[in-house]
Amino acid sequence: MKAAIVTIGDEILIGQIVDTNSGFIAKSLDRIGVEVFEMLSISDSREHILNTFLKLQNTVDIVIITGGLGPTKDDITKKTFCDYFEDELVVDTVVLAHVTELIEGFYKRAITQINKDQALVPSKCTVLHNQVGTAPGLWMKKENTVFVSLPGVPFEMKYLIENEIIPKVVRDYHRPYIIHKTILTYGRGESAVAEQIEEWENNLPEFIKLAYLPAPGRVRLRLSVKGTDKQLLEKSIEENVASLTKIIGDIIVGFEDDETLEVILGQILTRQNKTISTAESCTGGTIAQLLSSIPGASSYFKGSVVAYSTEVKQNVLGVSKNLIEEHSVVSAEVAKAMALNVKTLLKTDYAIATTGNAGPSKGDASAEVGTVYIALATPNEVMVEKFDFGQPREKVIDRASVKGLEMLLKEISKKEL
Amino acid sequence: MKAAIVTIGDEILIGQIVDTNSGFIAKSLDRIGVEVFEMLSISDSREHILNTFLKLQNTVDIVIITGGLGPTKDDITKKTFCDYFEDELVVDTVVLAHVTELIEGFYKRAITQINKDQALVPSKCTVLHNQVGTAPGLWMKKENTVFVSLPGVPFEMKYLIENEIIPKVVRDYHRPYIIHKTILTYGRGESAVAEQIEEWENNLPEFIKLAYLPAPGRVRLRLSVKGTDKQLLEKSIEENVASLTKIIGDIIVGFEDDETLEVILGQILTRQNKTISTAESCTGGTIAQLLSSIPGASSYFKGSVVAYSTEVKQNVLGVSKNLIEEHSVVSAEVAKAMALNVKTLLKTDYAIATTGNAGPSKGDASAEVGTVYIALATPNEVMVEKFDFGQPREKVIDRASVKGLEMLLKEISKKEL
Repeated sequence: MKAAIVTIGDEILIGQIVDTNSGFIAKSLDRIGVEVFEMLSISDSREHILNTFLKLQNTVDIVIITGGLGPTKDDITKKTFCDYFEDELVVDTVVLAHVTELIEGFYKRAITQINKDQALVPSKCTVLHNQVGTAPGLWMKKENTVFVSLPGVPFEMKYLIENEIIPKVVRDYHRPYIIHKTILTYGRGESAVAEQIEEWENNLPEFIKLAYLPAPGRVRLRLSVKGTDKQLLEKSIEENVASLTKIIGDIIVGFEDDETLEVILGQILTRQNKTISTAESCTGGTIAQLLSSIPGASSYFKGSVVAYSTEVKQNVLGVSKNLIEEHSVVSAEVAKAMALNVKTLLKTDYAIATTGNAGPSKGDASAEVGTVYIALATPNEVMVEKFDFGQPREKVIDRASVKGLEMLLKEISKKEL
Repeated sequence: MKAAIVTIGDEILIGQIVDTNSGFIAKSLDRIGVEVFEMLSISDSREHILNTFLKLQNTVDIVIITGGLGPTKDDITKKTFCDYFEDELVVDTVVLAHVTELIEGFYKRAITQINKDQALVPSKCTVLHNQVGTAPGLWMKKENTVFVSLPGVPFEMKYLIENEIIPKVVRDYHRPYIIHKTILTYGRGESAVAEQIEEWENNLPEFIKLAYLPAPGRVRLRLSVKGTDKQLLEKSIEENVASLTKIIGDIIVGFEDDETLEVILGQILTRQNKTISTAESCTGGTIAQLLSSIPGASSYFKGSVVAYSTEVKQNVLGVSKNLIEEHSVVSAEVAKAMALNVKTLLKTDYAIATTGNAGPSKGDASAEVGTVYIALATPNEVMVEKFDFGQPREKVIDRASVKGLEMLLKEISKKEL
């Protein structure tokens, strides 16, 4: 079963926003064995939408379209959808009741004609009810291809994918198993790894696909298989990972499934009944935000002190003025003191601390732009590492936050063996 | 002049990574008047790459391709490029010298055959020299369309776009002006805004395109024009923004393209020489993260206490046990105490506090899922509002964070009049 994902909206084509919807949809489809053949971003133009539909018709089994379903004049997807299917818009009474309840009951506003128009749907479509917004999803089939139109607002799109599309596809279509296994390696470059595993790679069975995903300082190797015999697929992946580990076991640090770092950390901390806090300077609360984004985080995440100013590092975290003056505020010593002190203050088992200069300017700190110290306090010790994350600012904040979580993961994983 | 952007790599199609390269390229092209017609993500498959090239041939003036240029076996773009142009790979001596210098001189490793193969390029192509990596960019023309192949590593791609592609396009092509003006409004929904400006919208000249970009709590209105007479374009945008301001001036908070709520707050706080801190429970550091994401934030953002657990609210923020027991931890009284206490503790002029239940489960809190109290402490008083943000969890966190910033904006804007 093959899918295409189409995003409609000029804001993506002019680079005003980055399309994150398509990635979410792709991951959701991949997980149930649907192969994504192509992703497209096209303009809010009737002609372009119709041409794209025509091209995908009978090429893929399902086309998932996001965007252009809002109530305003520039949102033309619904009308174009109707044209493509030679259909007309009719009022869906269930949607109208839901929109009315949402606007009048929840938002306490008078309902307007624009609101009411959200309940207009093509007469032949299957309506996918959007419980978290006003624009419904639309499901229509033409010859061998289903076209699904979803609102572009991320949480509404996600709601419909998880609660309507995925269950419906699982029920209605026969799909193979798709299994990926991603191996994380640190400390050796892409071409060096490739040379080392060349023979292993040449001996991989035809049905296993290998991909190299390089990033500064690390290479991820992804093995992918597709087929009907789940056990056989799993076994072949397992055997080949084992033989790979014999060759480059020294640089393999873990395996990545679909879970994000925050989810994995949450699972391990819950299992170990341990707690975590953070003291953040240059990351400004990003680590706290990542940790607390997971449902159930309150059982292991107690809180943070975002000590953006030196004063807060002294007054709230109790880092001594002398220590700061002696080593400067961006230093290994201050990072360690921040981690130890927040661990004590918030009474947690572990604590992550960051201090650095995210840039873009050097400011009053003596530290170079991009320099970050990250400390991890554990029940028994405190460790610190220095990094140079370069620029831009957002990359420094992002990489420092991920690195802090990785240091914690490495530490608590030891206890899992 | 029209462009297409093509990303090659299964990692995007299975949702393993989000494509951010295309957005960067789109923005860079838009800025010099090149219209991006379409963005595509396709698989690492020879057939799919060739079909895509064929479809775009003579449809657009330039196709910019990223990905699949690495040294490993799964990177097939270069070979496929050669096939499409009926060309053969030859060694480029300048690239070879650069790769050798990088590997042997900078990384201090022995150069391997895989490294050397990075210097193979199609014989008829114009080589775009990549000073920050080993894979060069390739520029080749067939009939009316230029195809440019770039490495997928973001900073290498950016280097080649900024230093090679953009200067070359500016030099070689005649392009119109493209101007966008984005108006930020806060506090009124998309459909309410649309109804209010309906007449204005109907009277917009044909060549001005209007787009609505809604997000929780705010709507951005983007006006776009394209043409050869820059002055005329600017004048028409200016006039129409002025007439729009007469209608919805009360909700317009800013203009420029990249200005977010955090940026505007930063500008006003800097101008007024005031400082801000936050005490966050259910938002888990998200408000701190937003405030600190802005360069120069350290001049007005002092820090935060993320008081995720009740214990931290008591021990660090000094909210009394009695108050919590009497009103419950999710209450107007606790929100007010959190705001007042963090303001005192961090010595700031303003403070935002949040306490609520982001869900998905009710947990041990007595508060309903989605209920959030947000308090704002000012130099003279403290105010609090109760909200029901519904579900899902990420929406509650996102909307509560934006709402907290909006309460601050509303308050400090008064001083600007």
